[in-house]
Amino acid sequence: MKRTRLNRLPCPIARSMDIIGEWWSLLILRECFSGTTRFDDFQKNLGVSKNTLTARLAKLVKRGVLKRVPVEPGAKRRHYKLTEMGKELYVVFVALRQWGDKWTFDGKMPPHAVVERSNGRAVAPVEVRSTDGRVLKPRDTWLVAL
Amino acid sequence: MKRTRLNRLPCPIARSMDIIGEWWSLLILRECFSGTTRFDDFQKNLGVSKNTLTARLAKLVKRGVLKRVPVEPGAKRRHYKLTEMGKELYVVFVALRQWGDKWTFDGKMPPHAVVERSNGRAVAPVEVRSTDGRVLKPRDTWLVAL
Repeated sequence: MKRTRLNRLPCPIARSMDIIGEWWSLLILRECFSGTTRFDDFQKNLGVSKNTLTARLAKLVKRGVLKRVPVEPGAKRRHYKLTEMGKELYVVFVALRQWGDKWTFDGKMPPHAVVERSNGRAVAPVEVRSTDGRVLKPRDTWLVAL
Repeated sequence: MKRTRLNRLPCPIARSMDIIGEWWSLLILRECFSGTTRFDDFQKNLGVSKNTLTARLAKLVKRGVLKRVPVEPGAKRRHYKLTEMGKELYVVFVALRQWGDKWTFDGKMPPHAVVERSNGRAVAPVEVRSTDGRVLKPRDTWLVAL
């Protein structure tokens, strides 16, 4: 009930959470960004119950973040792929991962790094920038009604 | 129980969700980034019950995202401020807000924009970049074990 009410609010954070904010949803999407597409692989990698996984996948498909497509043209068997809407969560994930790496490992080295495929270099910390490329901090911006 | 188990996993997404992933937590943090500091204002702006708000604020303080500080030096009354750890969620919020603005308003104009305080210009879309500034897409990166 809380969720329904907030979903009607004109807040993109609330609306986004309504789509991807359930406990398993972000971890399912994390798997998608790592190339997981098949139900069995999601289940094995996440250790989530089949019922919960079925429900979360169905919701992500319904809300447009994932699509269920044939594993190859004409095949009956289907797997799950990110839609364009889903792919655009990439930057949210990288930003959240970088924050988690920095703040949730008690100063220890995090176990993984996001690197460029072509040269193996770690990506830069994600930052908010002006359209001409200056890095902006929270105090440099505010929210205005349109 | 699910949360406890995932919290022990070496995944920064799971660990971050364990800290900020509860339904009200992100909305409380959204308020913090808009300058809300007082319990009564959180309650009024979010329409959340006092019990839930008390529990969420206590958790965010315990996990280091918020701090409870005197409203002025020496004052008994306290309010809530973002810690450095909390402030660094800023980019996650802006990225999530931009995604929500683009994908959850059915093509309609979202109600607010994040703009620069100094000149009123909308900030750029947040992007993943290489250390030398190139924009990177999901296919350009992968995750490596450290």
